Amino acid sequence: MTMRTQLSVVKIGGNIIDNPEACSRFLQDFSKVKGPKILIHGGGKVATQVAASLQIETKMVDGRRITDKPMLDVVTMVYGGLVNKNLVAQLQSLGTNAIGLTGADGGIIRSVKRPVKSLDYGFVGDIVAVDGKQIEQMIASGLVPVIAPLTYSNEGLLLNTNADTMASATAVALSTYFDTNLLYCFEKKGVLADPDDDDSVLESLTPPTYTAYKAKGSINKGMIPKLDNAFAALTDGVGKVTICHANDLAQAVLGNAGTVVTLD
Amino acid sequence: MTMRTQLSVVKIGGNIIDNPEACSRFLQDFSKVKGPKILIHGGGKVATQVAASLQIETKMVDGRRITDKPMLDVVTMVYGGLVNKNLVAQLQSLGTNAIGLTGADGGIIRSVKRPVKSLDYGFVGDIVAVDGKQIEQMIASGLVPVIAPLTYSNEGLLLNTNADTMASATAVALSTYFDTNLLYCFEKKGVLADPDDDDSVLESLTPPTYTAYKAKGSINKGMIPKLDNAFAALTDGVGKVTICHANDLAQAVLGNAGTVVTLD
Repeated sequence: MTMRTQLSVVKIGGNIIDNPEACSRFLQDFSKVKGPKILIHGGGKVATQVAASLQIETKMVDGRRITDKPMLDVVTMVYGGLVNKNLVAQLQSLGTNAIGLTGADGGIIRSVKRPVKSLDYGFVGDIVAVDGKQIEQMIASGLVPVIAPLTYSNEGLLLNTNADTMASATAVALSTYFDTNLLYCFEKKGVLADPDDDDSVLESLTPPTYTAYKAKGSINKGMIPKLDNAFAALTDGVGKVTICHANDLAQAVLGNAGTVVTLD
Repeated sequence: MTMRTQLSVVKIGGNIIDNPEACSRFLQDFSKVKGPKILIHGGGKVATQVAASLQIETKMVDGRRITDKPMLDVVTMVYGGLVNKNLVAQLQSLGTNAIGLTGADGGIIRSVKRPVKSLDYGFVGDIVAVDGKQIEQMIASGLVPVIAPLTYSNEGLLLNTNADTMASATAVALSTYFDTNLLYCFEKKGVLADPDDDDSVLESLTPPTYTAYKAKGSINKGMIPKLDNAFAALTDGVGKVTICHANDLAQAVLGNAGTVVTLD
């Protein structure tokens, strides 16, 4: 196997986006990550706040946002505009040549509107294609993609999309061109053996240990889709997946922090 | 002089953006324009409406918007998010590989915050640099830039910026690589000899005729900065400038509609 360039695909959660100091610190660390890189960001609470100010009701079912048309406009404004462009402008001031994108831009991440079954999620997208070649060309011209959690359909719809899934799908698509290192950064130090002890970070997690911790109930609800994404990404060609605290990005890129998710 | 590829740089005004039918028709025509192209869009009234819904006061002095911090956030949401990403998604559905950008994205259009003199415009940018090479690389990889009226400063500020000026500065910067054709599309058929007669379109306009129509008062306030931009663009290397109705884009690209602005 030939040596390939390492690409860091970094997902940053909404809780960090919502905290200006934490976000600023994270962006400084991200700007120092060597080599080609991609940032994928969550939404954060600003969309809910803007919706409330516009007297648009935020509908949640089973902890999931229902995206009706007024809410789609709000998330397009907040995720695709306010959050994304401020991240880009801050990264530019740090010397990182960021380019803010949704899945629609350059047609990089296409989805279909989620079919209505027991629940109508509204304008929510399930990813069907990532144009890794287009993203690779941007990276080759020196750009650092900063991707908001929105995709688009063939019909010209924008669709609200899970950022964790966008990160894993992007990392998989770029694995054709790079040795990809997918890092999920959030407000915990990694996957915890004991959800009540922030320092009980697992150094690594394999499918059998994951199954065991799920059975014990110590790996909790929000972490399960993240880990399912992580294992799927590894199966589909991603070189490495790490789950870490946003403050630990610099160490995690080097393999010295967070939980490393592995297949064996 | 060698033959160079023609690049169409098309500015679309806010009045067209605000009208879904007119905008949809325009996008269909724009998607059919042959060869490399760039779309630069104005803001439209949605920002004012969103600001009003958020109970943010829109401050105007001499017909110009004063961009305080709450209003900067609104225009970032509306111009950079809602308007820009919906244009991109619609163009993608028409088979045009659009990529939505502000000046901050890829560092393509940098500005300085306008110095406070008799009036403090707030977070408004005066353009200092356009990275034509970066835009040319995007075009070379098959992308169609769709640019929102926002730029950025070295300090990481986003800045509200006049879309007409962004269009002319972009056309000038790209003239190093292309034979540029700058088209200002709006809700009139061109420059009018008589502002009360929509059919009194001037076929062409030169500096002496411009001076004469200004002296007569038949070229009005809003048209003057647009024409000043047009003449400056020609002086700085743009091949051709046309001012036309948004419905006439297809004909204007071929030189068969609107007012052609020329130096002699």
